[in-house]
Amino acid sequence: MGSAHSSCSLLTTSSTQHFCFPQSPICVSKLRPANQNQIRSIKFTSHSFRCCSSPQNLPLRCNQVGEFETQVKSFKTMADIHGIDQELLNKIVYDALVWSSLHGLVVGDKSVKRSGTIPGVGLVHSPIALLPGSFPETHWKQACELVSIFNELVDRVSLDGKFLQESLSRTKKADDFTSRLLDIHSKMLQMDKKEEIRLGLHRSDYMLDEKTKLLLQVELNTISSSFAGLSQIVSKLHSDLLDQYGEVLGLDSRMIPENNSGNQSAEVLAKAWTEYNNPSAVIMIVVQAEERNMYDQHWLSVHLRKRHNVKTIRKTMAEIDREGELQSDGTLLVDGQAVAVVYFRAGYTPIDYPSETEWAARLLVEQSSAVKCPSISYHLAGTKKIQQELAKPNVLERFLDNKEDIAKIRRCFAGLWSLDDKDIVRKAIEAPDLFVMKPQREGGGNNIYGDDVRKTLVRLQKEGNVEDAAYILMQRIFPSVYPTIFVRDGICHKDHAISELGIFGAYLRNKDKVIVNDQCGYLMRTKVSSSNEGGVAAGFAVLDSIYLT
Amino acid sequence: MGSAHSSCSLLTTSSTQHFCFPQSPICVSKLRPANQNQIRSIKFTSHSFRCCSSPQNLPLRCNQVGEFETQVKSFKTMADIHGIDQELLNKIVYDALVWSSLHGLVVGDKSVKRSGTIPGVGLVHSPIALLPGSFPETHWKQACELVSIFNELVDRVSLDGKFLQESLSRTKKADDFTSRLLDIHSKMLQMDKKEEIRLGLHRSDYMLDEKTKLLLQVELNTISSSFAGLSQIVSKLHSDLLDQYGEVLGLDSRMIPENNSGNQSAEVLAKAWTEYNNPSAVIMIVVQAEERNMYDQHWLSVHLRKRHNVKTIRKTMAEIDREGELQSDGTLLVDGQAVAVVYFRAGYTPIDYPSETEWAARLLVEQSSAVKCPSISYHLAGTKKIQQELAKPNVLERFLDNKEDIAKIRRCFAGLWSLDDKDIVRKAIEAPDLFVMKPQREGGGNNIYGDDVRKTLVRLQKEGNVEDAAYILMQRIFPSVYPTIFVRDGICHKDHAISELGIFGAYLRNKDKVIVNDQCGYLMRTKVSSSNEGGVAAGFAVLDSIYLT
Repeated sequence: MGSAHSSCSLLTTSSTQHFCFPQSPICVSKLRPANQNQIRSIKFTSHSFRCCSSPQNLPLRCNQVGEFETQVKSFKTMADIHGIDQELLNKIVYDALVWSSLHGLVVGDKSVKRSGTIPGVGLVHSPIALLPGSFPETHWKQACELVSIFNELVDRVSLDGKFLQESLSRTKKADDFTSRLLDIHSKMLQMDKKEEIRLGLHRSDYMLDEKTKLLLQVELNTISSSFAGLSQIVSKLHSDLLDQYGEVLGLDSRMIPENNSGNQSAEVLAKAWTEYNNPSAVIMIVVQAEERNMYDQHWLSVHLRKRHNVKTIRKTMAEIDREGELQSDGTLLVDGQAVAVVYFRAGYTPIDYPSETEWAARLLVEQSSAVKCPSISYHLAGTKKIQQELAKPNVLERFLDNKEDIAKIRRCFAGLWSLDDKDIVRKAIEAPDLFVMKPQREGGGNNIYGDDVRKTLVRLQKEGNVEDAAYILMQRIFPSVYPTIFVRDGICHKDHAISELGIFGAYLRNKDKVIVNDQCGYLMRTKVSSSNEGGVAAGFAVLDSIYLT
Repeated sequence: MGSAHSSCSLLTTSSTQHFCFPQSPICVSKLRPANQNQIRSIKFTSHSFRCCSSPQNLPLRCNQVGEFETQVKSFKTMADIHGIDQELLNKIVYDALVWSSLHGLVVGDKSVKRSGTIPGVGLVHSPIALLPGSFPETHWKQACELVSIFNELVDRVSLDGKFLQESLSRTKKADDFTSRLLDIHSKMLQMDKKEEIRLGLHRSDYMLDEKTKLLLQVELNTISSSFAGLSQIVSKLHSDLLDQYGEVLGLDSRMIPENNSGNQSAEVLAKAWTEYNNPSAVIMIVVQAEERNMYDQHWLSVHLRKRHNVKTIRKTMAEIDREGELQSDGTLLVDGQAVAVVYFRAGYTPIDYPSETEWAARLLVEQSSAVKCPSISYHLAGTKKIQQELAKPNVLERFLDNKEDIAKIRRCFAGLWSLDDKDIVRKAIEAPDLFVMKPQREGGGNNIYGDDVRKTLVRLQKEGNVEDAAYILMQRIFPSVYPTIFVRDGICHKDHAISELGIFGAYLRNKDKVIVNDQCGYLMRTKVSSSNEGGVAAGFAVLDSIYLT
């Protein structure tokens, strides 16, 4: 899930709508179908906040807003970044492009056919923001503080098979993909399959709501969280540029938080490999047949080999089916090699399962003793429907004991409702611009927003099956829009942007022993802000890092 | 000069010719016109030794051969490298391509138009040999030992303006490019211009003659010696691959000599910058307008900035003319910036001087107080004609005092003759396959070899102007042919190859103080061996490193 397979439109900040929401603000996002021939990974679920200045019908969560307003410095944008002298700008861009080329900040160029299958050809610098985006330190700290709680939460949710099955029972009917995942999950429950070593490499994505100054979670990715490899390098690029140009720009590289997302992720994979305790076993990266973001993944493999002498192999789902077998002790052999850890960088979207072959591969992996990153339970725990269920009153309490932790988590929840909430459905019909209808199915598919929300809800009501429809309602988040300099395909482009901050989290436990429960670096993605929804399809999103203010 | 602007055909090792030469073996090389739209830098002057087994007319230099035969281990090729298991081979190739992409071992792809002007786009891994080529340790040591002597020799030759002018007087008539360089040189002599700080970043290129086991110099590049940046990385790639696969291949990464060619070159540039003693001055890299080998150069710039906080600027000859000016104290200003060191990575070929503009730029630089790498004198000292003059009896003695040094240098000289040597002209007509006619003009142009040597010489004799023709005669060197695995554009290709070893040398002095006189890493280039001369134009030459045997 996550950036690797969801992308979203941007909405303007201008709006004539003026009201906000009771329990939590209202979130809208739009997914578009994943396209395997593009760098999927730089798309992201964006939520833009059109308005929330003048409550209408619904009061603001004033106490919370107030709390943050006292804590938080104002969300500054980079001081007139668009005003940088053109000659200086050209130099910085040139240096950034050279730096990227020399330091492996690269992706496969989609205009070069072989670039998704053969490394070393058709390389192009990763799309980047030239300079890091401003982010308030308080919110940064808040996001970091949430990591270990979410890690723990996912683990606990994953152990509650009944909760997962029940919560997703309606989704099962409406979405074949979730249904197939649930089938595997059911089989594991029937087998009483225990995952003693549990590994999560998650990424929790947030947006900062402009008006309320609330850090709101967009989604929690528990499978195939991409960009740990490249994000680390983007932060180094930005640090390097500020070391060089910081003085003239009035910026200090020390304000970019250290980001070792790639190395730390690899470290945790190595620890999981160690726990598995078979020195001759490998780590298997499950990949798509074409992957233009392969270097992001390769950075982890290189670290694993150089620092830990751990070998990685790369296999598609189809190859796993063809070459995989289970030994009687549960060992997964693929192409004759024992697999200690299965690291999914594919398998999160229906597109990755074009035939029964791939489903057989997923089942095979799940049945094995290999450490799965993620297991089917972890995967399901990261679905939008579960996100929505967890947002319901008293659900978090089922999994977490510490009241403070619960409060912290709840504070970052955007509004999430199922369609059986009649009040919300009525409100969404009245003010569709403040909501988004998200299909429950994972891995792509368009969200519904704007007046289409109203139309769709009205139609579903008439048809009498609002509750069964495969949608949830989410609050639309409206993040700050600020000037940015995008660099893509060697071309520099000034525009206004919105950003989404992803915090990587790693969780590893072996039976009762929690070995890792840590933050693991971060990913900032920045996307052009545009009133033209159609323009979004151009996918002008770039890798970024943050500059604490 | 050097790899950056000369390339050459390969000849087969099979031959019906069987005789060798008296003073030194006979060398043949072939230049083809430089093509600005290609990566020129991986072409090299190759000399393949067809035969030298059965003396005919001319005796072998037996004492020297014998001396080497007792010293040198046999020139082993990598143990049946073509026999590597295909699956293993695929893995190594894949890893090599990934490694190259992540570690900046890249060039601009000539199929992408912008790749020579805009960094970060149209990147492709550098063409490489998959594994390092065997090279005898004794010859390696011999080549290293020669560095400081050649460095000193160039410096001394450069100070003898009369020698340069006289030696090149005939070339001046025949070659306009050399003539223009000599004009600038004359002006400097007239001005009594002194270069107190003298900087050379040379590369002496050698081939190992298969039959005689002699290390023979192909050429000495005193301007624009390319690949210091990437060569260092190729050696690291090879070390890394052997760390990973050495056991199964029976190879030990420690047998690859350490190669810090890029960093060391940058260090010496930084030292020259320090000697110039203007903290606000920059190092100017003189570049071609299109340069697909730009990353090779950028590696040096990055080192200069990161380690020494020295700024580099990149300017074409035309830009230098447009933006450059001399201050009354001799300071060179370009675009308003004082230039401490001018590092030429262009200007070595007539193609770089399409108009008077570029010649004006070269003169401007030469008149300035900036440290030139190289000065016009250093440039001229590296011409083929001077190489040939130095090979004449008693000429080295004019510049070097130490008899041992002279003997060492002479030992690596291939046969080099001017066309006024009637005996050699006669021998070349009799046995043209053992010679090559090299045009004296620098920077491109086809060599003449095979039966065309005979035809051309006979024609020139009839016309009565053999001596004035702009050619020299060189011994053709026939290096070992050994199996290699080429990787180019993501494609692996097994073939037989010949190699040329370049040793980088750095020389820096300020008045009487020699600050640096060192070896500075190395460059191994390997090219497919082919009996089809036309096939050479495909330019299948790759970056390589060496494996000591």
